[in-house]
Amino acid sequence: MHRLLILSKHADAYRQLIGGARLDDLDITTDESAADVAFGEPSLVAPAIARLTKVRWVQATWAGVEPLLDPSLRRDYILTNARGVFGGLMSEYVFAYMLAHERKLLEKYAAQRECRWDPAPPGTLAGKRLGLLGVGTIGAAIAKTAKHFGMRVRGYTRSSENSADVDEYFHGADRIAFARDLDYLVNTMPNTANTRKFVDEALLGALPSRAVFINPGRGSTVDESALVEALRTNRLAGAVLDVFEREPLTHNNMFWWLPNVLITSHTAALSFPEMIAPVFIENYRRFRAGQPLRYRVDFEAGY
Amino acid sequence: MHRLLILSKHADAYRQLIGGARLDDLDITTDESAADVAFGEPSLVAPAIARLTKVRWVQATWAGVEPLLDPSLRRDYILTNARGVFGGLMSEYVFAYMLAHERKLLEKYAAQRECRWDPAPPGTLAGKRLGLLGVGTIGAAIAKTAKHFGMRVRGYTRSSENSADVDEYFHGADRIAFARDLDYLVNTMPNTANTRKFVDEALLGALPSRAVFINPGRGSTVDESALVEALRTNRLAGAVLDVFEREPLTHNNMFWWLPNVLITSHTAALSFPEMIAPVFIENYRRFRAGQPLRYRVDFEAGY
Repeated sequence: MHRLLILSKHADAYRQLIGGARLDDLDITTDESAADVAFGEPSLVAPAIARLTKVRWVQATWAGVEPLLDPSLRRDYILTNARGVFGGLMSEYVFAYMLAHERKLLEKYAAQRECRWDPAPPGTLAGKRLGLLGVGTIGAAIAKTAKHFGMRVRGYTRSSENSADVDEYFHGADRIAFARDLDYLVNTMPNTANTRKFVDEALLGALPSRAVFINPGRGSTVDESALVEALRTNRLAGAVLDVFEREPLTHNNMFWWLPNVLITSHTAALSFPEMIAPVFIENYRRFRAGQPLRYRVDFEAGY
Repeated sequence: MHRLLILSKHADAYRQLIGGARLDDLDITTDESAADVAFGEPSLVAPAIARLTKVRWVQATWAGVEPLLDPSLRRDYILTNARGVFGGLMSEYVFAYMLAHERKLLEKYAAQRECRWDPAPPGTLAGKRLGLLGVGTIGAAIAKTAKHFGMRVRGYTRSSENSADVDEYFHGADRIAFARDLDYLVNTMPNTANTRKFVDEALLGALPSRAVFINPGRGSTVDESALVEALRTNRLAGAVLDVFEREPLTHNNMFWWLPNVLITSHTAALSFPEMIAPVFIENYRRFRAGQPLRYRVDFEAGY
């Protein structure tokens, strides 16, 4: 018999969804010392992990698992995240904002408030060049949608070249060549020691001034001072920012005030219980059968 | 030798694009009485058509050809339109606005102007139900994008069932059943005697109150009084309107003032010369070879 501890602000929903699946040999418990499986938000599991003495597997409800990567915490268990399910939502987020930019959605909205018929022609995504920083399951979903709309797609990765929807791959020192001539730069890199402030003055400086930066990934991967400067001086056409070094943004943060920035308050891909419960259920079946789990996190790599 | 008359506000661009293609046996002329082929905006060709005594074929730069369908005008020539090329732009338009609705783009924008961190969760297109009024080349392109985003797709057509991306077809008197339970209703029907005020009180009344109506088709297909009333009383969640019975909208038109309406001033799918010239070029090759032309208009059906 396995014993599952759920640590989530949506615990009631998860108890219903996971309980309703009637999984073999699984009890849901509230006893920290009895649980061999834990499930929940990394921010809630991390403070409890020292007390979960029997835990062998933790399934996170998020894609990012930073709280559990704190070097002072145990790593003697299997950690899996939920990265496989966010591709669709992330793709909707990125394309909502890229299409809004091409279609001049906010300009048309401003004209409407002045009762002004505005025949200004829109642009199109067809033929535009998208650069993806990171091509994991999320980047690959975005690449697939980009090809649907006839875009040209570049991918920057550590070494992997797994998505057939990426036309050109770049690695290592090629990041400046990668950035040149992009219309859109989309960041989905995880937060690791190697990605910290990766989007810096040099990378932003290599983008053409027509480019738009979209960040539904991690705030830590951006040098925010360099980004503010590029936006303030219009060396970058705009930015759509979901994540920041410190959240929520304080009232006096420059990003609120820049006219070419759109802020989406860390909502790009929320963990809805209906989406995440199936990840646990499938992984539990694998766990019970002794098969490798999906979306396992490498504590050293940090994702 | 064929002689082509170009009647377009983009005549210079078309002369360059078509001239640059060096088509066999084709001269570009400005002599109305010499031309056996005409190319241009229906609004410019219609007033000249009586004088184009030798014309055998007219290629329109638009999808809609209403000016040339005036019953007082000649119909003794082949008329082709450009409907085949607008699928991509129309799809970008429709999905820009459906995604903006799901992602609460304007609500997030309003929060930003108050420097307010807004964690309100977005929706998703996945699983939502789209109803297409008309499934020609444009409707089929929208259906294909809808399936990419995991939507369920209904199509209402006179009789055709040509798109594999439509899950359920409706015809004739089934329009109320078609409208029931839609999340989005998108109109791409042409302007004909049969489509006039098709979107009326009964059809709008069959939609659930969460539904959004998007019209990049023709203004004449909508009973505008019924639409205003449905929007004013929130029996419809919103409308995205590109076209109207009379354009441009006058300053005192109700549509400007309804808070749940977005107006895009007839820009959903503009005729860019780079997109339209290839339609002429391909059709000219067919014309010269005596083959059937693409996108031929049936004067009786009106499209």
